[in-house]
Amino acid sequence: MWLFWNKRSTKYVYSFAEGKGVWKDILGWKWANLAEMKSLGLPIPDWFTISTETCDIYYKNDKKYPQEVLDQIEDHLQKLEKTMWKKLWDAQDPLLVSVRSGAAASMPWMMDTVLNLWLNDASVVWLANKTWNERFAWDSYRRFIQMFGDVVMWVEHHLFESKLQSVKDEKWVKDDTQLDVDDLQKVVWLYKEAIKLSTGKLFPNDPREQLQMAIDAVFGSWNNERAIIYRRMNDIKWLLWTAVNVQSMVFGNMGENSGTWVCFSRNPSTWENKFYGEFLMNAQGEDVVAWIRTPKKIDELANIMPDCYKELVAIYKKLEQHYHDMQDMEFTIQEWKLYMLQTRSWKRTAAAAIKMAVDMVHEWLIDEKEAVMRVSPSQLDTLLHKQIDPSAKKDATLLAKWLPASPWAAVWQAVFTAQDAHEWREKWKKVILVRLETSPEDIQWMVASQGILTARGWMTSHAAVVARWMWKCCVSGCSDIQVNEHEKSFIVNGKLFREWDVITLDWSTWEVFQWELNTIDPDLSGDFGTLMSWADKFKKLQIKTNADTPRDAAKAIEFGAEWIGLCRTEHMFFEETRIQAVREMIVAKETPERVKALAKIEPYQKQDFVDLFKILEWKPMIVRLIDPPLHEFLPQEEKDIEYVAREINVSVEDLKATIADLHEFNPMLGFRWCRLGVRYPEITQMQARAIFKAALEVQWAQPWIEIPLVGNAVEYKILKQIILDVAEELWVNGRVNYKIWSMIEVPRAAITADQFADECDFLSFGTNDLTQMGCGFSRDDAGKFLKLYVEKWIYEKDPFQSIDQEWVGQLMQICLEKSKSVNPNIHVWICGEHGGEPASVEFCHRIGLDEVSCSPYRVPIARLAAAQAAIKDMK
Amino acid sequence: MWLFWNKRSTKYVYSFAEGKGVWKDILGWKWANLAEMKSLGLPIPDWFTISTETCDIYYKNDKKYPQEVLDQIEDHLQKLEKTMWKKLWDAQDPLLVSVRSGAAASMPWMMDTVLNLWLNDASVVWLANKTWNERFAWDSYRRFIQMFGDVVMWVEHHLFESKLQSVKDEKWVKDDTQLDVDDLQKVVWLYKEAIKLSTGKLFPNDPREQLQMAIDAVFGSWNNERAIIYRRMNDIKWLLWTAVNVQSMVFGNMGENSGTWVCFSRNPSTWENKFYGEFLMNAQGEDVVAWIRTPKKIDELANIMPDCYKELVAIYKKLEQHYHDMQDMEFTIQEWKLYMLQTRSWKRTAAAAIKMAVDMVHEWLIDEKEAVMRVSPSQLDTLLHKQIDPSAKKDATLLAKWLPASPWAAVWQAVFTAQDAHEWREKWKKVILVRLETSPEDIQWMVASQGILTARGWMTSHAAVVARWMWKCCVSGCSDIQVNEHEKSFIVNGKLFREWDVITLDWSTWEVFQWELNTIDPDLSGDFGTLMSWADKFKKLQIKTNADTPRDAAKAIEFGAEWIGLCRTEHMFFEETRIQAVREMIVAKETPERVKALAKIEPYQKQDFVDLFKILEWKPMIVRLIDPPLHEFLPQEEKDIEYVAREINVSVEDLKATIADLHEFNPMLGFRWCRLGVRYPEITQMQARAIFKAALEVQWAQPWIEIPLVGNAVEYKILKQIILDVAEELWVNGRVNYKIWSMIEVPRAAITADQFADECDFLSFGTNDLTQMGCGFSRDDAGKFLKLYVEKWIYEKDPFQSIDQEWVGQLMQICLEKSKSVNPNIHVWICGEHGGEPASVEFCHRIGLDEVSCSPYRVPIARLAAAQAAIKDMK
Repeated sequence: MWLFWNKRSTKYVYSFAEGKGVWKDILGWKWANLAEMKSLGLPIPDWFTISTETCDIYYKNDKKYPQEVLDQIEDHLQKLEKTMWKKLWDAQDPLLVSVRSGAAASMPWMMDTVLNLWLNDASVVWLANKTWNERFAWDSYRRFIQMFGDVVMWVEHHLFESKLQSVKDEKWVKDDTQLDVDDLQKVVWLYKEAIKLSTGKLFPNDPREQLQMAIDAVFGSWNNERAIIYRRMNDIKWLLWTAVNVQSMVFGNMGENSGTWVCFSRNPSTWENKFYGEFLMNAQGEDVVAWIRTPKKIDELANIMPDCYKELVAIYKKLEQHYHDMQDMEFTIQEWKLYMLQTRSWKRTAAAAIKMAVDMVHEWLIDEKEAVMRVSPSQLDTLLHKQIDPSAKKDATLLAKWLPASPWAAVWQAVFTAQDAHEWREKWKKVILVRLETSPEDIQWMVASQGILTARGWMTSHAAVVARWMWKCCVSGCSDIQVNEHEKSFIVNGKLFREWDVITLDWSTWEVFQWELNTIDPDLSGDFGTLMSWADKFKKLQIKTNADTPRDAAKAIEFGAEWIGLCRTEHMFFEETRIQAVREMIVAKETPERVKALAKIEPYQKQDFVDLFKILEWKPMIVRLIDPPLHEFLPQEEKDIEYVAREINVSVEDLKATIADLHEFNPMLGFRWCRLGVRYPEITQMQARAIFKAALEVQWAQPWIEIPLVGNAVEYKILKQIILDVAEELWVNGRVNYKIWSMIEVPRAAITADQFADECDFLSFGTNDLTQMGCGFSRDDAGKFLKLYVEKWIYEKDPFQSIDQEWVGQLMQICLEKSKSVNPNIHVWICGEHGGEPASVEFCHRIGLDEVSCSPYRVPIARLAAAQAAIKDMK
Repeated sequence: MWLFWNKRSTKYVYSFAEGKGVWKDILGWKWANLAEMKSLGLPIPDWFTISTETCDIYYKNDKKYPQEVLDQIEDHLQKLEKTMWKKLWDAQDPLLVSVRSGAAASMPWMMDTVLNLWLNDASVVWLANKTWNERFAWDSYRRFIQMFGDVVMWVEHHLFESKLQSVKDEKWVKDDTQLDVDDLQKVVWLYKEAIKLSTGKLFPNDPREQLQMAIDAVFGSWNNERAIIYRRMNDIKWLLWTAVNVQSMVFGNMGENSGTWVCFSRNPSTWENKFYGEFLMNAQGEDVVAWIRTPKKIDELANIMPDCYKELVAIYKKLEQHYHDMQDMEFTIQEWKLYMLQTRSWKRTAAAAIKMAVDMVHEWLIDEKEAVMRVSPSQLDTLLHKQIDPSAKKDATLLAKWLPASPWAAVWQAVFTAQDAHEWREKWKKVILVRLETSPEDIQWMVASQGILTARGWMTSHAAVVARWMWKCCVSGCSDIQVNEHEKSFIVNGKLFREWDVITLDWSTWEVFQWELNTIDPDLSGDFGTLMSWADKFKKLQIKTNADTPRDAAKAIEFGAEWIGLCRTEHMFFEETRIQAVREMIVAKETPERVKALAKIEPYQKQDFVDLFKILEWKPMIVRLIDPPLHEFLPQEEKDIEYVAREINVSVEDLKATIADLHEFNPMLGFRWCRLGVRYPEITQMQARAIFKAALEVQWAQPWIEIPLVGNAVEYKILKQIILDVAEELWVNGRVNYKIWSMIEVPRAAITADQFADECDFLSFGTNDLTQMGCGFSRDDAGKFLKLYVEKWIYEKDPFQSIDQEWVGQLMQICLEKSKSVNPNIHVWICGEHGGEPASVEFCHRIGLDEVSCSPYRVPIARLAAAQAAIKDMK
């Protein structure tokens, strides 16, 4: 996984034909994409690909290549010349190429691309002739030099800017467009000077040298900062370097018979099955990104170039049929001829994915299983949270309404610089980054923000695309606002907003509001409901929820939870009305005093349970006995201690002594959980009484009691007996359907489960504690190294987010096997946050658990993940 | 284990003949002991035994018996009448019995005994006639009532004392002996009154009633405080109740032709093979205990009653031959006839056990294997520690010289009351309890003391016997001292000693000194050396030692350690000369600063290793890389922070920020161990460099490097690579025989060992951390419940003292299996305190570990335990 290639072929460079059957790991997703389109007979400019293995060699070999690599590149260049009927160095009709990255996974905008290779002092003349526009050719050339100098030769941007400025100053003009051919030639000369001065090297006129340097630059960009951040963010760790694709250029700026940009096989905002796209005539993609001209809607192409439009429509349909998925395509028209440059399945929002999956089932394009597989469970989260309350909007100050770049609401304070976003993120503040526009360099500042608002751009521009990839709220190209990044402010409708002013972004209506707006629950019927009902058909795992309050319980049931899989009882101890009695219990020196204090708590606990039982009706409720260490209930500050001492009528010294006595060096490994119940059986008795009395009151109630942090069979049996004794005392047997079992949170319990599983009705894993104890780091303390550990692939994922299958997983399997050896029918599940994490849910399905329980908002995620796991099993 | 009998016979009472083949669990050690003697043909007074099952029923049945039990007792009483040719109620020759406890294990003096049953108004007359001594009979009777009232009827002691006093006062006398028959009859009457007043019941004249009540009392004493303490102290948890033995009385006070007390088959002080004993003519054991008359040496019996003496000699030889062990016997002579009441193998000190084991091999009584099995490994500890320096004694003030009741030196402050001993124990002070004499009620105060000094008693009296059982230092019966318990002082040779004065007890010479005396190392040659050489012949495990300093290493090698099994490097960080550089390293913000600070530490570390290598010569040294969390090196107190900040030249704020930053919620699960090495590779590099440079300097050195707290294969490989890189950098390969491996301290590592065991030369278990993480409690915090958990049998033993075989043991086995599956020749061992605990060593042998490593003073214990484990295997 983390090591090196074992086998190494001596083939480094591949044409389309040669690459068939070679792993995508070796040739990258871009090759695969181009090749798949070419196989479908689509018009693709010819290309060849330098493999990821070459990149590996490049890095391992001190950023040099063996001669073989250079030979193979040369060989393929000559083939490209032949197939394209063009020649390097041919001033009449030169072969121009693009050099693009292409790792095994798509990483849009993260690595470098060099276009228009090799414009040079000779080919610029050809370009001038070809376009009948000398000024355009020289402007292209100077822009190529600037790009090449920036990306390939690492010359600082401002050096070019200052040269350009000096020429403008000399001529007393303000705009680039006011420069003529002579001026631009001068700029070209100055740029070349700047490169020489800055790097000590000449700008290479030789196309081969340009190519070699561009390839190096692409390889090098694998390790630029934004690519590293992107991979970290997207959990891309299995990738091994990038390949490089050298493709003959096609030009959208060859005149008014040429054009370029993107199209979608369905509407990316409404997800309707309606062709959608944007294009610019006589332009390169660079022009679109640079916000120089506003693109046209794709429909207009039908008027301008009906044949190309028709061909494009046929192509998008073919591609959608082929991929069974909505496509996001790049195309270029060069002198009436259409070329496809890229296609990929649209990175959907959850809502889009659901709508399209349901639509496609209705269009007989895919079946229900396929539809369920189409939606990423982790995306669902975005659908389940609060959305802006429409009624709140009535009175709200609408600042602007623009393009919905990505579908989330965000309500936070505005910041204006990347640095600010980052700093405030470090301080755990949540911010909306407000910018004129964003660029690839901004990626880590976007990571740091909760939402992004830009004045420039539109739904296919950088901010929008990247925000979508990041699942962030983004309103992009909102030209109603004027941003002054320097002053850290923006103006909209004459209103001035400064740093830290609060605004609300609403993705669903593409609006920006002043202040914070109320939010409401999302609507979960419609397509969402349909898809989830399909998911429920396939899943094998039962999905429960962790809920401690009637509100949570109701929410979870709305989200499809089958019942309460974990009700923690400790929050009940913290509530204001009873905290005093709880503290009396803690400072009690003898059992009778403690019993007295517990008697005060009991009615509260009982009522809590009554309320929950009423919500659940006949559904069982799993109650976990008290969990936190006692010192958590006591005050720490001097004046709080004084107050509490007075309140519960003990001396300050006594209370301090109690607090000191309860201090723990490692609270995570201390005196809490079921240990409290063994040491002070009266606590367990009180809880059992409250549960049973509540159950007797709400007649249909089914309390299922689980004992936390059991490590030992005897410990479990002692506690079970305490509960059974209370049941007998209250004549509960036969009147209430109760169950008792142990949680498996202590590694010791997992491995000795065969000693007590026969006395458990169920078993439930507490994977969080299993992780902490088994890996030997607490969640609170792991911050100092866990991030680094994930980066270094010591752990594939943060084991607190996704079950560490090698440890916790293996332990669960051992426990399962041992438990079933003494109690074949035992039900086993997990609760805690892992129960709502897709990979963990899949794991639980795979090892044969019966159920998972998770927080209410994760219930739909768990349902979908469980269905997908079951469907994978069928295959 | 902790539960109840499954099968229950309906037989409750057993005679000698009926008991054969019944478990000792049911009939107790006393039955077994009497029965074994009877089988050998020795003269034993007839008896019957009420089973432990009856005791169980008694407790479960609200302290009552089913009629069957009563019937069976009556039945056996009648049989006893027949075989003894005596009759209950026969005023001419009544059947008198003793009622004694007898659990499956011997618990001397811990439970109640009632002798002289049934003296009553009728039989007292018989006794007077029989002994020709009316005063003696009535004095016996009044003492019987007092004992019966105290033990059986729970009348407070002082009530009897005040009655007795009132009669003395009336008569203006001071001593009991000044009372005549009339006075004693009056005392009897007053005693009976006191019982009636105190309990509302009459003193029972009916022998059957007396018997029944005595049986109840013995059953009841199973749960008296001292019995509970005794069981806890001696880890007696598997016992299920006590049996009761009803035996016909024989009297040592029937006149000058009678006598009683104890004898030993060898000298219990010198352990020479020489008959030793003490006896009193015309006395019961009670008289001896009560310090009324001084007993005679057994040799004198040869003159007084040569036949009885000859018989006794024959019996002791027979018993020693039979048990192959030194015997401690109780006998009584009644009217020229010898009866044996009890025998047991002498509870030896380690020195005695060793001497006798070696002697018995030389006497061809046992073989070497048997000799090795004879000595309890945990006892050895007492031999290995410092003893009083003879040269120090020259100038010391000898206070007294008396009987060496138990063989340890103790140097501590004197206390005079049980309460004081207890209180100071709670405060972790160490004290010597100085008392006139001790009694069974004192047991828990003796537990609380380090040593015991009594003015009365001798080597077979209560203080001496119990101190021996507790492995405590005791000088008993030191009549040179006059103790005033009330004033809390004692006088010896005219010198007054008060509470908290320091004295030294030297068990080996039976001396008491003023002040604290120097101690020296014990001599480990002679019999000790012989026995250990036999042990080494049989053991399979290699025994290594944990040593961080040359001094420890030398000591361990003297104790027979084969080499250093664990050298912790962190103490080196704490030393004064380098702590400043260590702190500079910690506060370093960037790698170069940290490297600079580490460069200062490196020469010190290197020198430490050089010194250790020189001691070890060619023997390998296992070095564990740095372990503690960084914050341990930083100061906590305000003024210390200021000082350190100045010293290492950072601002107080910076230092505070660093300290705050390093704070951990659960240090045991925090940023330390190998995690430091992954995060700051330069620390690992520095340590590796210091080790290798030292090894190069001391040419024969073999550094074996173990990496602590690995939880993950990748983590291990990263760290191993760092060390390998340093090895390459220093050209170590081929010049130094080094090895690298992982410790198994994190449960995760144990279960994933197959992922990296093939890259480890060895593996070593850190069972302490496995316990903490796997059981989920830290050693520092478990105090609040672990004692209770051991008492409740949730854990059989403290898992930090003896390996928790169900958890740690099982995990070790899983790890062993997995490691060997990828690396069949891998060596595996444990280090840490478990490595010197006998049960853990046996476990390690059983699961096939190769080695254990423990602290120097535990090396001989481990050697002996390993030998015993291997010998058990052979059987």
